[in-house]
Amino acid sequence: MKTMGLSRLLLVNPKRFPDDEAVARAAGADEILAQAQVCTSLDVALADTVFACAVSARQRNLGPPAVQARAAASEILAKAGDGDVALLFGNETSGLSNAEVQRCQRTVYIPANPAYSSLNLASAVQLLCYELRLTAFDSAPPVVTKAIPFASPPATNQDIERFYDHLGRVMVSSGFLDPQRPRRLLPKLRRLFGRAELERDEINILRGLLDAVEKQLAGRGGRPGPAGNSGP
Amino acid sequence: MKTMGLSRLLLVNPKRFPDDEAVARAAGADEILAQAQVCTSLDVALADTVFACAVSARQRNLGPPAVQARAAASEILAKAGDGDVALLFGNETSGLSNAEVQRCQRTVYIPANPAYSSLNLASAVQLLCYELRLTAFDSAPPVVTKAIPFASPPATNQDIERFYDHLGRVMVSSGFLDPQRPRRLLPKLRRLFGRAELERDEINILRGLLDAVEKQLAGRGGRPGPAGNSGP
Repeated sequence: MKTMGLSRLLLVNPKRFPDDEAVARAAGADEILAQAQVCTSLDVALADTVFACAVSARQRNLGPPAVQARAAASEILAKAGDGDVALLFGNETSGLSNAEVQRCQRTVYIPANPAYSSLNLASAVQLLCYELRLTAFDSAPPVVTKAIPFASPPATNQDIERFYDHLGRVMVSSGFLDPQRPRRLLPKLRRLFGRAELERDEINILRGLLDAVEKQLAGRGGRPGPAGNSGP
Repeated sequence: MKTMGLSRLLLVNPKRFPDDEAVARAAGADEILAQAQVCTSLDVALADTVFACAVSARQRNLGPPAVQARAAASEILAKAGDGDVALLFGNETSGLSNAEVQRCQRTVYIPANPAYSSLNLASAVQLLCYELRLTAFDSAPPVVTKAIPFASPPATNQDIERFYDHLGRVMVSSGFLDPQRPRRLLPKLRRLFGRAELERDEINILRGLLDAVEKQLAGRGGRPGPAGNSGP
């Protein structure tokens, strides 16, 4: 729940509460457990809700309409404008009874392998909370400006053309490319580097390497750094 | 995995395998565990993949492009037409190292509460498998008609790692890279070529060029063609 930004947990007749194992497993999210509200019956837990969804792998006779998790997330968020909404989960062993499911306005199922469709309780909770978070932030996504580390400004067309010239020279001087029979090698490398959308620093590294190779081939030696590309 | 219809599990250097606790926890899905393939290194595990995604809550320096789980599922399914694809998860305690993430073509993150963003391993696996299943069965499969001239099949992870090895050798032998002071030049080039998603022919061209340069540097001369990359 906490990974997806949810915080309000209600427990209906828990076998043990508080419980040391539960606290240990809650790790950094133990405040959600500490603030959990214990209810003596499902009626009490659902009393103030305007919309409740029972999560169940099985479609029930006489149960409320069944919807997929993703569609349910949209409905739940829409209804949340009107009052409290709830997701109802059964316990790990026996799930929800028909009577409990019938307390709800929807049965929510998680699309799964028909041959093995029952998720662990923890997995089901995680998935539903995830769908709620994604739906909640879908239209107005949280602005995540991931300034990718090391990204540098894009290279200019001129930078790139100079790199291709340089690459072509080394391809010839190394004996790899026969100018009389170029075999479309350079266009193929243009296609590759074009896809990558080269950045300025990357051009500097590539040209530094080409410089170093060129100097070695010319028998001049030297040990240029990555920024050591000698002009156009 | 089984709830979402996935079956192929590879384990890299598991602490214990087979393991009684794992079997007990696998419940009705123990055949997936029984058929799991144990690999002695990540290289072995990824060798035949054409597309691998590292699942990580953290954006890494020099890591591959980061995409959300849902978008990653679409990409993975599209690439699965070309060959094996992989999702890479770290262990519960320490996650993935930067070097491991850099072996992949994408970093996949699960949108989460910024204040508490790290999911349990089991939860992360469940969510990614769920997104894959939903995407796979979501209406019609994505029509990927990338009629790109010259396109050849994607390079495998092994091809790509051999190219990086070769590139690294030439960077050193040309005097461009000082092994005592590598300055993250190779990770930066990994990031560049990772974005490009190298094809098999391109690897052959690049390695042919490296071969030619290497032979010149060794004073042996010669004029190898683009297919003249000499083994691993």
